[in-house]
Amino acid sequence: MKNTWGNNLQISLFGESHGPAIGVVIDGLGAGIELDMAFINGQLDKRKPKGKISTQRQEGDQFEIVSGVFQGRTTGTPLCLLIRNQSQHSKDYEATKYLVRPSHADFTAFEKYHGYQDYRGGGHFSGRITAPLVAAGAICLQILRDKGITVASHIRTCKGIEDIPFSNDQGEILQAAALLNERYFPTISAEAGEKMVSLIEDAHKKGDSVGGVLETVVVGMPTAIGEPFFGSVESVLSGLLFSVPAVKGVAFGEGFGFADLYGSEANDAFAVENGKIVTKTNHNGGINGGITNGMPLRIQTVIKPTPSIYQEQDTVDYRKGENAKLTIHGRHDPAIIHRARVVVDSVVAIGLVDLFCERYGYTWMEPKEEKEGTQ
Amino acid sequence: MKNTWGNNLQISLFGESHGPAIGVVIDGLGAGIELDMAFINGQLDKRKPKGKISTQRQEGDQFEIVSGVFQGRTTGTPLCLLIRNQSQHSKDYEATKYLVRPSHADFTAFEKYHGYQDYRGGGHFSGRITAPLVAAGAICLQILRDKGITVASHIRTCKGIEDIPFSNDQGEILQAAALLNERYFPTISAEAGEKMVSLIEDAHKKGDSVGGVLETVVVGMPTAIGEPFFGSVESVLSGLLFSVPAVKGVAFGEGFGFADLYGSEANDAFAVENGKIVTKTNHNGGINGGITNGMPLRIQTVIKPTPSIYQEQDTVDYRKGENAKLTIHGRHDPAIIHRARVVVDSVVAIGLVDLFCERYGYTWMEPKEEKEGTQ
Amino acid sequence: MKNTWGNNLQISLFGESHGPAIGVVIDGLGAGIELDMAFINGQLDKRKPKGKISTQRQEGDQFEIVSGVFQGRTTGTPLCLLIRNQSQHSKDYEATKYLVRPSHADFTAFEKYHGYQDYRGGGHFSGRITAPLVAAGAICLQILRDKGITVASHIRTCKGIEDIPFSNDQGEILQAAALLNERYFPTISAEAGEKMVSLIEDAHKKGDSVGGVLETVVVGMPTAIGEPFFGSVESVLSGLLFSVPAVKGVAFGEGFGFADLYGSEANDAFAVENGKIVTKTNHNGGINGGITNGMPLRIQTVIKPTPSIYQEQDTVDYRKGENAKLTIHGRHDPAIIHRARVVVDSVVAIGLVDLFCERYGYTWMEPKEEKEGTQ
Amino acid sequence: MKNTWGNNLQISLFGESHGPAIGVVIDGLGAGIELDMAFINGQLDKRKPKGKISTQRQEGDQFEIVSGVFQGRTTGTPLCLLIRNQSQHSKDYEATKYLVRPSHADFTAFEKYHGYQDYRGGGHFSGRITAPLVAAGAICLQILRDKGITVASHIRTCKGIEDIPFSNDQGEILQAAALLNERYFPTISAEAGEKMVSLIEDAHKKGDSVGGVLETVVVGMPTAIGEPFFGSVESVLSGLLFSVPAVKGVAFGEGFGFADLYGSEANDAFAVENGKIVTKTNHNGGINGGITNGMPLRIQTVIKPTPSIYQEQDTVDYRKGENAKLTIHGRHDPAIIHRARVVVDSVVAIGLVDLFCERYGYTWMEPKEEKEGTQ
Repeated sequence: MKNTWGNNLQISLFGESHGPAIGVVIDGLGAGIELDMAFINGQLDKRKPKGKISTQRQEGDQFEIVSGVFQGRTTGTPLCLLIRNQSQHSKDYEATKYLVRPSHADFTAFEKYHGYQDYRGGGHFSGRITAPLVAAGAICLQILRDKGITVASHIRTCKGIEDIPFSNDQGEILQAAALLNERYFPTISAEAGEKMVSLIEDAHKKGDSVGGVLETVVVGMPTAIGEPFFGSVESVLSGLLFSVPAVKGVAFGEGFGFADLYGSEANDAFAVENGKIVTKTNHNGGINGGITNGMPLRIQTVIKPTPSIYQEQDTVDYRKGENAKLTIHGRHDPAIIHRARVVVDSVVAIGLVDLFCERYGYTWMEPKEEKEGTQ
Repeated sequence: MKNTWGNNLQISLFGESHGPAIGVVIDGLGAGIELDMAFINGQLDKRKPKGKISTQRQEGDQFEIVSGVFQGRTTGTPLCLLIRNQSQHSKDYEATKYLVRPSHADFTAFEKYHGYQDYRGGGHFSGRITAPLVAAGAICLQILRDKGITVASHIRTCKGIEDIPFSNDQGEILQAAALLNERYFPTISAEAGEKMVSLIEDAHKKGDSVGGVLETVVVGMPTAIGEPFFGSVESVLSGLLFSVPAVKGVAFGEGFGFADLYGSEANDAFAVENGKIVTKTNHNGGINGGITNGMPLRIQTVIKPTPSIYQEQDTVDYRKGENAKLTIHGRHDPAIIHRARVVVDSVVAIGLVDLFCERYGYTWMEPKEEKEGTQ
Repeated sequence: MKNTWGNNLQISLFGESHGPAIGVVIDGLGAGIELDMAFINGQLDKRKPKGKISTQRQEGDQFEIVSGVFQGRTTGTPLCLLIRNQSQHSKDYEATKYLVRPSHADFTAFEKYHGYQDYRGGGHFSGRITAPLVAAGAICLQILRDKGITVASHIRTCKGIEDIPFSNDQGEILQAAALLNERYFPTISAEAGEKMVSLIEDAHKKGDSVGGVLETVVVGMPTAIGEPFFGSVESVLSGLLFSVPAVKGVAFGEGFGFADLYGSEANDAFAVENGKIVTKTNHNGGINGGITNGMPLRIQTVIKPTPSIYQEQDTVDYRKGENAKLTIHGRHDPAIIHRARVVVDSVVAIGLVDLFCERYGYTWMEPKEEKEGTQ
Repeated sequence: MKNTWGNNLQISLFGESHGPAIGVVIDGLGAGIELDMAFINGQLDKRKPKGKISTQRQEGDQFEIVSGVFQGRTTGTPLCLLIRNQSQHSKDYEATKYLVRPSHADFTAFEKYHGYQDYRGGGHFSGRITAPLVAAGAICLQILRDKGITVASHIRTCKGIEDIPFSNDQGEILQAAALLNERYFPTISAEAGEKMVSLIEDAHKKGDSVGGVLETVVVGMPTAIGEPFFGSVESVLSGLLFSVPAVKGVAFGEGFGFADLYGSEANDAFAVENGKIVTKTNHNGGINGGITNGMPLRIQTVIKPTPSIYQEQDTVDYRKGENAKLTIHGRHDPAIIHRARVVVDSVVAIGLVDLFCERYGYTWMEPKEEKEGTQ
């Protein structure tokens, strides 16, 4: 329940922003999965800061897989993936160590770890720790892809600017997903994207920051995945999504919009289409009673504005116990929502693979052909 | 990850709406906690259907504790609490067994359990299963209460009608909590409550239903509870909240409102007040980096409109694989949000007790005085 | 990690010897398994005290399944099985409450639960709590049986008296298993059984008790079940076996006999037989590297002599902190090994079903035919 | 349940014998523990092969801590420790890849991983993977040491040669523990040690191998640690011990010797000594009802003879499905029991720290003095 997650797939995340390395152990992978290294690198690339709308900290994110892969394929034993930290300006943090940054985890880390935490760059609370999560997620996304399942996210809204929502049509969703896969700044409408980038650049100039809402879809999901109560798809995915720094809200289907609907408007009528039972609408986001109904999963995740802003802020000196002023310097993101989308895709994929294993075991993810065997 | 939850406290929920009994096993309680039976009954009472705005199914909810309690106090070994089912009209369901109800779990249950599920009254998916959860939650609420921690929820909005939000002042919150504890229909403003009840009655007359948003606060929380990633307070609580039937969205602090704020507006500045570090605002809902900061927790939970409505709906006959029409009869709630608030309070309490144990062990919840002992 | 066990199948055990009821929740069963009630009752019957060699406490062990079963088949949702306590002589224990019985859990219960434990009849530490475990095990044994897997145990030795060990031949093992299934006192050699019974009766006359070693085999196991390290078959089964009261040692294959062998004697050579890879010997008890190799599993479990003896013993008065003398009265077993064998079979079956689910998911245990479904 | 272990402390083990690196992630450590690097290195040194009685593979076992430690102390966030593999003769294994070695995991790995496993040097099944386990154990041993708890093991018997058993006197145990800490070949009697070494050297000359029994004690344990059933001290420790390669039996107190005792001989009478309740004997090895009683824990663990022997053995060619002959070359241990003792000490320490956290939380292991803090 700490930094190790999962029932079937077990993910153990480690590392601090300015320590020697960050990484992840993935236990429970099936054997024989040929890793798509280009895809993993591509996913890490989407998480990297680029351009003016991101921090100038340049992270190579060169990863090394030190176990669990042999001759390019998973062995079925734990996979450890390591990313060495490089571009560290550790001294940036020394001076302001006791000036706990508002809305960051500095204060709570002091309270929890009594000052023994690695305070440099947020330490273990740094968004940087999501890089190995993206790598683990890339493996899970690849596993889902091989089953015909696609996960995609875009920025649905950002301070009032709206992107085109995902369609309910599977073909159109796949088209949008392909498009989003190409784009570093993930909007379906290029125009909406440009407006958001402008907004972020403006915020940056003012030393300010913004957040936004990500919309995620999963298409190709079969029915019957998930459990009634504590193992509901919503429970599993939200548990993972809320472990992503800056996420403060998660909703499925209409989400908070349900508060404004009558049951007669909110219910998804069933119908037979091409011999398959579908719902005519998808207000429930592909989940009934915690279990997938075969329709696309629809998830909304709100990302709060980056707490690192350049304006002077009121805070306290933790050691002295006195009020103080803080002006943050260094390299920070005026927005992380565009970088967060790949983290969201990743944890959704991790959660779904875990749920599949619950039902079908870890052999579910293994390639059909056996490499060896007389029996 | 199925219907058993928890790392430190383990909750195992069982039962079907029309089976012999429903109940819960709570493993991990400390020894010597004197159970407040009046309080447990009071909590169950808040979950019971009452008046025109609820189903007419009358449930006694008489519970029996069959283990883990001796001479009125917890023994420290697993507590099993049982509620016998009584007021069952099982035949109501037989005729429409294959007409899967829109937005219910009938269809997904067929897909998952191949027709072996107890389909009567939603079986294990029934909201009735939350009764033992409320009983378990009452024990956890009592444990928190003994530590000076109060959990309270009200209906924040219901189809546009707004209740007064919780104040940020601890004294005022406690006053509101006391008020809400007295009220079956949980609004702070009696007037807002009356409007909502009218709305629900109207919906009922039209054979329709409504949902709404619950706002929950927790006051008295110390700092340092929760973990950075997968064990974040948000992860743990959301995982539990989404296991409550009808919950489709969970948010902390400003929640989805963060999408409209600049960082400079969203950050919570720290200040020293009476020698204690506090935040001047509480946009983050008492949690930074997944860990409590000592400010009140603020949670929003959206409850979707009850899917059981009396209007004719399009659906399919699952066995025949054909389109069909369905008109639901029987006893149903035009709204469950007022009954859901105590379920929400319950799972929040369960999650917090589990997190406290992570840090302080199960002895944390035990009374200070030892009954026996020479050593 | 407390009284809730399992990763895929989750078993939650509850109850005290003299409380209202004991029972178990089994979460993670597949749907559609037709429960063999006669078999479950037969297994409970093997655990019951009978004759002079057992306690005179007569336990009906009438169980009631209150959830998870509908129309005779599992629903796939948690199954709760309840056994009401009946033949309780609670007053027997009151007088000697503070005279902690040697080698029982009375002292450790005082230390752990500060006197709040239900001390009557050992409370939650009573061997009686194994009755629901046997019921849960019977369901798992039935699941394994449907897959062609048989579990059987006999008393291998009892104070120097030896039963015929299990053969390595599968046909002979199955014959012995059938025989043992018929016998209340589980020895393969009827003669050895009579000698052991005499020994136990003698011990009983002297107010004394005996223990012994159970040998268990599992035939029909496929290869590839189990994990390299913490999820090794030995780890999983031993963890369960040591949760059975009175078990103080567990060994696989040659077990402690390995200390006297050279590698050249201990190794199991492979050979192809009828197109299948087998081992010529089975010193490793069917497990290599924690994973099943297709040969019969061979397990030894030592049961210590029942600590309840009728001779006067030295002890302390826990409350006074003074030395004291204790003479135990009441109804006790001079041996429990014959009753323990079905508990051992049960936990082995539970462990194996859990391990199968790890590899193949919970759908592995479901009957092939679907009851319903258009898709 | 796979290669990730623990409820409170979570241990995730990874790596293959001939892959880039092996290591471990330890999640759940308290903050502020000053790591004793000399001690960790000393423990790893005890596991290293030395002299004629061990493999000639020279492993540096230089470890690097890449996370979770800052300025020499634990941060409270996951600690990842890495050991790079160096002295690899990978080609040794290529030729005999399909000749599955008797009593090794080669066959079961083929069955489980379909040929995708890293077969070089046993891959993930290699005893080498216990090096990071020893490092993790060293940290736990240090934590226990700071609480006044000592763990020590010696070779109790090896093919008939017996070492002096541990005394029941705490002072004498501590003396023996100090002695054993100094010795690479862990016997209390130097003479017994020499005889065992001779025996191993003889076995080596004959191309053979031997096993033996380790006896472990833990002194300084408080009462009340452990749980009644699945979380019994025996369950937790045995589950860990059986995950150590080559362990085939685990027993507590008299262990299998209980089969030859009457209850009157086996029971441990209580007495008050210096105002403290103790047992006069310790047949139960410090555990009653799964819970520590304050007496020394006594554990026996049997290590089977190393399966790698130099004599020609019968086996099969896995790919061809034909009988074959195998003569193992390369560097192997004629005995590993002397190296295994530190692994046993390690997993015992890991298990105990986890159990302590269950009761007292992770803050239990933290140093008393806080580094920082105004509150």
